[in-house]
Amino acid sequence: MTFDILVIGGGPGGYVAAIRAAQLGFSVACCESNPYADPKGNPRLGGTCLNVGCIPSKALLHTSHLFEEAAHGFAAQGIEIGAPRLNVKKMLARKNGIVQKLTDGIQGLFKKNNVTFLPGHGAFAKQTADGWIMKVGEAEVTARHIILATGSKARHLPGIAVDNRILCDNEGALEFDTVPQKLAVIGAGVIGLELGSVWRRLGADVTILEASPDFLPAADAELAKEALKLLSKQGIHFHFGVSIGEVKGGKKGVSIAYADSAGKTASLEADRLIVSVGRTPNTDGLNAEAAGLRLDARGQIEVDSHCRTNLPGVWAIGDVVRGPMLAHKAMEEGVMVAERIAGQAGHANLDAIPFVIYTAPEIAWVGKTEQQLKAEGVAYKSGKAPFLANGRALGVGAPEGFVKILADAKTDRILGAHIIGSGASDLIAEAVIALEFSGASEDVARICHAHPTLSEVLHEAALACDKRALHF
Amino acid sequence: MTFDILVIGGGPGGYVAAIRAAQLGFSVACCESNPYADPKGNPRLGGTCLNVGCIPSKALLHTSHLFEEAAHGFAAQGIEIGAPRLNVKKMLARKNGIVQKLTDGIQGLFKKNNVTFLPGHGAFAKQTADGWIMKVGEAEVTARHIILATGSKARHLPGIAVDNRILCDNEGALEFDTVPQKLAVIGAGVIGLELGSVWRRLGADVTILEASPDFLPAADAELAKEALKLLSKQGIHFHFGVSIGEVKGGKKGVSIAYADSAGKTASLEADRLIVSVGRTPNTDGLNAEAAGLRLDARGQIEVDSHCRTNLPGVWAIGDVVRGPMLAHKAMEEGVMVAERIAGQAGHANLDAIPFVIYTAPEIAWVGKTEQQLKAEGVAYKSGKAPFLANGRALGVGAPEGFVKILADAKTDRILGAHIIGSGASDLIAEAVIALEFSGASEDVARICHAHPTLSEVLHEAALACDKRALHF
Repeated sequence: MTFDILVIGGGPGGYVAAIRAAQLGFSVACCESNPYADPKGNPRLGGTCLNVGCIPSKALLHTSHLFEEAAHGFAAQGIEIGAPRLNVKKMLARKNGIVQKLTDGIQGLFKKNNVTFLPGHGAFAKQTADGWIMKVGEAEVTARHIILATGSKARHLPGIAVDNRILCDNEGALEFDTVPQKLAVIGAGVIGLELGSVWRRLGADVTILEASPDFLPAADAELAKEALKLLSKQGIHFHFGVSIGEVKGGKKGVSIAYADSAGKTASLEADRLIVSVGRTPNTDGLNAEAAGLRLDARGQIEVDSHCRTNLPGVWAIGDVVRGPMLAHKAMEEGVMVAERIAGQAGHANLDAIPFVIYTAPEIAWVGKTEQQLKAEGVAYKSGKAPFLANGRALGVGAPEGFVKILADAKTDRILGAHIIGSGASDLIAEAVIALEFSGASEDVARICHAHPTLSEVLHEAALACDKRALHF
Repeated sequence: MTFDILVIGGGPGGYVAAIRAAQLGFSVACCESNPYADPKGNPRLGGTCLNVGCIPSKALLHTSHLFEEAAHGFAAQGIEIGAPRLNVKKMLARKNGIVQKLTDGIQGLFKKNNVTFLPGHGAFAKQTADGWIMKVGEAEVTARHIILATGSKARHLPGIAVDNRILCDNEGALEFDTVPQKLAVIGAGVIGLELGSVWRRLGADVTILEASPDFLPAADAELAKEALKLLSKQGIHFHFGVSIGEVKGGKKGVSIAYADSAGKTASLEADRLIVSVGRTPNTDGLNAEAAGLRLDARGQIEVDSHCRTNLPGVWAIGDVVRGPMLAHKAMEEGVMVAERIAGQAGHANLDAIPFVIYTAPEIAWVGKTEQQLKAEGVAYKSGKAPFLANGRALGVGAPEGFVKILADAKTDRILGAHIIGSGASDLIAEAVIALEFSGASEDVARICHAHPTLSEVLHEAALACDKRALHF
């Protein structure tokens, strides 16, 4: 089989690269070999994100949010029910239905855009004058360009044999068949916070152990502080600066020995454990070394700003290269690489990639944090506005959090926007647009925002940059 | 009492004008005489919007949305409850608490910004060389500048004596002490749709009679069509092109005689009636005629693009002047006028005012509709994307609706954005920013949108303008 382009990996980076390349007139194939089998036994497209990441977690976050509202928020609104009961099986079935629908959808998009789906593991075989001969399963595929989009896998810890029943990574944590009474989480990153939140809302007593002394060190410190306050108030127990010792898992639970930040040893007993200590780039079985593909010390594939590797005609995108491990970053790179292969000017601005954490309230940001601006010696001003003064936030019962906008002290150009509050995941889009247009805080302040909407908090934060907030 | 500026009316236009003017260094008073008394017996600030409009309706929309989810959506998610019962009193108490908190908040903002609150009805007394002598209640107030922000009131129909118990306008419709079994609504505008939705979700059988043959004629026709389809599917009964005949209201209900679009007479029996046939500008008791203030044929105060009236030093903003009767439009004008009085360059761009209807799904738009572009002979292209292909929309159980972006056929500049779908009220903010920056659909298409978020549907619609949608 011969194609112009072979994409290795059908996750968000890979499938988007394949579709965009096909739209540009190339003959394109995309191979995938994950274990998430569809009813026909084929690996499912969509990668970690759709199968065991962003999408299923959002489904569970929604159900668990409603469950908590029903249990604790309804009475004050005048909605009278008995204590809600959870049917875990149905909750998981709904989630699985959404995953199935979307992963099937990508197969549909491949057909519509004439992308050939090749189930099977992709690996380098040999370089030829015309491009590359690759193995896809047992077959040989020739292509002028190769796009590596092999993604990442959960990082595990030595001494913890993840079985995805009692000792789980993100995959098992989406499949608990009962709500654990006590849930331990190692790692207070995005995955730990989101899945910890899901099971806490459903009734679990959740304790998160984090090796770092800091909470969400990549976030603006003020945002992280507020998040920690609110999540703790919800009942999640946090321990920072811990060293994990022996972890004993049995059929009925897990016992985690650890030393706290003062060095005192302790033990945490739980019914289940989620290990969420980051993800590592996935280059398994790619035969990268034999092909001469250069990896960096972290095991990521080395690329330039246009995602070119050191090998001619070989590109790499998404979690397997530098930059944040985010589906939308991978998609941006996928589009860029397809357009670069077509001789177009595709680009991906890694400085304007939004981050989102789907806790309640949601957390989202784009651009620089205050710590970064201080470290870089940039003179900045800051405008901050609370959701508490926003009519829509009160209406939907979500008065927590704030928006903070950071702007250049001289030019007023927006340098960063940081949101913790209801709807942050969608509110951040406005900030990204303003940032990409090199907008000033005054621009946002002078643009009309519909009333009553949550976006008015962003508007107030922009007004506050000029010390002329109207509503607090 | 003498002030630089007297603002007549403490609604969103008036209170914002007062606060902004005070921030600019003026001595400012704001008078208000509505019947919405606070516990001290003073009229409550915030106008129609906060007291009997946007804010209380959003509170009821939220509760009724959760009630409907509980009754009809929970089972499929695995949340098991009995049939939910509504405690109307508690629901209204929560709503009233939010109104109280926000209206009190404006009094706080007045104190913080040194705006003097004058309870009492404002009216012209006489013009002097230094400005105006005004009556506020029995007192005389002298001010160099007057800002008229007297808002609007519900339009009533001849022959329907609104008692706000059985025969209601927006005020009574927020205060039903029981859920009517049968609810009639005259007028399929924003208020009729929102309050009709509230009581339908809570169990009422809702019928809306509309005089116009068209549904939401100000909205893009495709948006209106989808809205009608979805709202009808939810069980609201619509009759268009009707002529209302005799309306008989008693203690126990109402009987509405009408002729349908074919001229056939019919009768609608209901427990309650909401009359929502628009709003009229409010110049009651202003003594406008004696002062020589010019009104137009609709009774609105005539103003130029900077909200100057025909009288020197007299400005008018918000619902009482031309343009959409929207709180955020009034606020924009309030800021503009305060800045104009200060000699600054304040402006309000009426072409970039977003519209929102808080049905489920929400409806929002900004800029031109397809009808308008056709009528103006503008060559345009269109990109449309469905929520059904969006992972977050599926996650939150809201797959209905679409985003449509209209862009100039030659320059690609965004001319309009039309959204029907979950979160539309906040998603529109991004479109307004893009529109105000004279952005192209390609700009939005090339800006990274977080995954999985509802804002990705806007992104896809922008991609679709160039026929390169990735996800449908």
